[in-house]
Amino acid sequence: MHLLSTKDLSKDYIEKIMAKAGEMEAYALKKKQSDMMKGKILAALFYEPSTRTRLSFETAMLRLGGQVISVADAQSSSLAKGESLEDTAKIVSQYADIIAVRHPEIGSSKKMAEGSSVPVINAGDGAGDHPTQALLDLYTIIKEKGQVDGLTVTLSGDLKNSRTANSLIYLLANYDVKFKFLAPEELKMKDEVKKFLSEKGLSFEETSSVEDGLSGTDVLYATRVQRERFKDAGEYEKLKDSFIFNRALLEKHNPKMLILHALPRVNEISKDVDDMPGAAYFRQASNGVSVRMALISLLLA
Amino acid sequence: MHLLSTKDLSKDYIEKIMAKAGEMEAYALKKKQSDMMKGKILAALFYEPSTRTRLSFETAMLRLGGQVISVADAQSSSLAKGESLEDTAKIVSQYADIIAVRHPEIGSSKKMAEGSSVPVINAGDGAGDHPTQALLDLYTIIKEKGQVDGLTVTLSGDLKNSRTANSLIYLLANYDVKFKFLAPEELKMKDEVKKFLSEKGLSFEETSSVEDGLSGTDVLYATRVQRERFKDAGEYEKLKDSFIFNRALLEKHNPKMLILHALPRVNEISKDVDDMPGAAYFRQASNGVSVRMALISLLLA
Amino acid sequence: MHLLSTKDLSKDYIEKIMAKAGEMEAYALKKKQSDMMKGKILAALFYEPSTRTRLSFETAMLRLGGQVISVADAQSSSLAKGESLEDTAKIVSQYADIIAVRHPEIGSSKKMAEGSSVPVINAGDGAGDHPTQALLDLYTIIKEKGQVDGLTVTLSGDLKNSRTANSLIYLLANYDVKFKFLAPEELKMKDEVKKFLSEKGLSFEETSSVEDGLSGTDVLYATRVQRERFKDAGEYEKLKDSFIFNRALLEKHNPKMLILHALPRVNEISKDVDDMPGAAYFRQASNGVSVRMALISLLLA
Repeated sequence: MHLLSTKDLSKDYIEKIMAKAGEMEAYALKKKQSDMMKGKILAALFYEPSTRTRLSFETAMLRLGGQVISVADAQSSSLAKGESLEDTAKIVSQYADIIAVRHPEIGSSKKMAEGSSVPVINAGDGAGDHPTQALLDLYTIIKEKGQVDGLTVTLSGDLKNSRTANSLIYLLANYDVKFKFLAPEELKMKDEVKKFLSEKGLSFEETSSVEDGLSGTDVLYATRVQRERFKDAGEYEKLKDSFIFNRALLEKHNPKMLILHALPRVNEISKDVDDMPGAAYFRQASNGVSVRMALISLLLA
Repeated sequence: MHLLSTKDLSKDYIEKIMAKAGEMEAYALKKKQSDMMKGKILAALFYEPSTRTRLSFETAMLRLGGQVISVADAQSSSLAKGESLEDTAKIVSQYADIIAVRHPEIGSSKKMAEGSSVPVINAGDGAGDHPTQALLDLYTIIKEKGQVDGLTVTLSGDLKNSRTANSLIYLLANYDVKFKFLAPEELKMKDEVKKFLSEKGLSFEETSSVEDGLSGTDVLYATRVQRERFKDAGEYEKLKDSFIFNRALLEKHNPKMLILHALPRVNEISKDVDDMPGAAYFRQASNGVSVRMALISLLLA
Repeated sequence: MHLLSTKDLSKDYIEKIMAKAGEMEAYALKKKQSDMMKGKILAALFYEPSTRTRLSFETAMLRLGGQVISVADAQSSSLAKGESLEDTAKIVSQYADIIAVRHPEIGSSKKMAEGSSVPVINAGDGAGDHPTQALLDLYTIIKEKGQVDGLTVTLSGDLKNSRTANSLIYLLANYDVKFKFLAPEELKMKDEVKKFLSEKGLSFEETSSVEDGLSGTDVLYATRVQRERFKDAGEYEKLKDSFIFNRALLEKHNPKMLILHALPRVNEISKDVDDMPGAAYFRQASNGVSVRMALISLLLA
């Protein structure tokens, strides 16, 4: 079995992952040590640099008592030399017991899974999916809010291009969630996602007004608005500041708002937000280790 | 003791490696776990990227229960800053228990061995040698064919520049093998190698005709014909397709032909060959782990 | 607790490190194995390549029975994408139990320490400090000379820009040492350091004459004179050869001189010096492992 997209996951399996991640927390928080995966090897194949995600996967495997072989920058590696991803997977799956792959192309992890004789985890495939990030976001919501049903979740920023927002929505669609999409006109949520939600009978609201977007929000999932996404630089200049959240703004709407962010944060969230009780974006890091430990355990069970 | 070239190996020692690799197979195939090298460290120094070979070495050491320190891209590393290889070896051999080195210059692993206080394994030195690849090729031949004596082995493609073909011939010369060299005129086998075989009393046949080259072949060892080796682009265009082997062609000559390839394969071997019973190029990967486990064990014994 | 600069270290703590490094020597010399740090993870974050230092840290952690996650080249990594060092430290300190950071900016390790929830070791911050190198230099002096008090220590070469010379002086200032600074006019020791020594009541002598600099020297600490430091290329050409030390020159002044060098050595020290009894620069490598094992142990105790 592989983990390629949050679209493939049943609610049962999602809850199994959440429960397993809960069991792993003591190890991720360095309170307990484990030899569960002794003798097992994770291959971390990163065809584009993503230090945070790679180190999180490696930490997860090491905290399970396993070992790691890594490619940190596949551009300068022979993996890039015209070989098909299926061929690479045929080889690497003979070395490792499980593979985590990050690759700039949509669908790349699926191609790897086709060649691989061991489980493949998608660690981000271009503008496609990033299921382990979405699972750690979900885990963080459950941990911080106690439950998912009944929450109003606002996703903000570049919703058109964010694979993390995309992957999270398909997970949250298994729950009774009210979505709000807060994005500039140019970066609105993809039609495909909105169609999926409509078919599922889930309600969502779209707005480009920060005030409207934040009102009634329980959980804010912020992504960055990047200058290069705009054709018109003036348009960007006009908009960018409204998508910088500071403490006063967030507290006005909900002082207990849970604030998530797929790091790195540059300036989308002001430093004065860091001390708000719901600013969970740094606490997410150890949740990421718990969730990846859970996934490795489940896929290798 | 070091492993620098297949030229240095006696038949006795080759057979010792093969036997040891056989013992290691259960570990390489992930059926058994080992702590044989607990507390030992392999330094994998790759002065040019070679992901497959590096990951194979690292896997071998980890499956032996040892640990690894790595340089995956020595160009961006201080190892390149004008220091002599002897000096580098003096330092790194105080860190690690054994060194595997890949370097673009012929003779580089020998220089490292001169400075090192621990065993050095040549993991490829430019157009020189690649002894661990040749040993895993030999191991694959023995495993798939039962024996080496009596076989007709055809090496094809760029025989002038292939260090893997070069290293394999010096190994096979210890057995009763009939060689066929199938190469375009521009990429014919080096005189030095042919002279060595003549002196050893071993027969070889040279041809640029694919039909002649494949006739009577028990084992095909294919290497890539690269455009950049040709002065005349037209010459390359004329030749390249004749060195692409498909299933129909190979089956016509010998449906049980053993087909080896030092990966990555781009298009020298068509995808329809992959399902032939003798298409061993992907199975070679786990053999590589077995052989490298054997070498580390023997050199550190 | 962190290790950011040799300026922060009391003599008591320095001696504690030296004693601990002595205990670690049997492990660093591969004579004993340890599981002291089983289950602990070192994050080696190298924002500029420094293979020797990185491999030394990794070896230290592995010889302690711990594990390692690494960034070998942070330029091609997402760590460089505008995120603050405090933010990075907040994340990575949730993965690892201890962090070693190399970064081109002065003060960078201090910034990391501010965000980190685990100990941070400065593995070199630009022209700032390199405390682990200085500690291994001190350890080498004690091991080779028996004691530090009473020694005349000559630091030579580019004293203006050498963070290793800088860090060593602040360590040695805890002992009764006579300093000699041998440098071309352009590369003289910084005023800040000289002021510090004067305030401490420690004597130092400055010269650009190699003969004067070497006379009476017990310990020579050589650094490289780099062409790019000179505005006037002719000036460099005139000077460079006087800062190349050969055996005849060093033996004339003191055949038992202890010779240290922060490698890589290019040609500052001739090869014929390597066999002098006091040529300790290669022996320093295993001392580096001992000292880093000691630091990891003390900071995680």
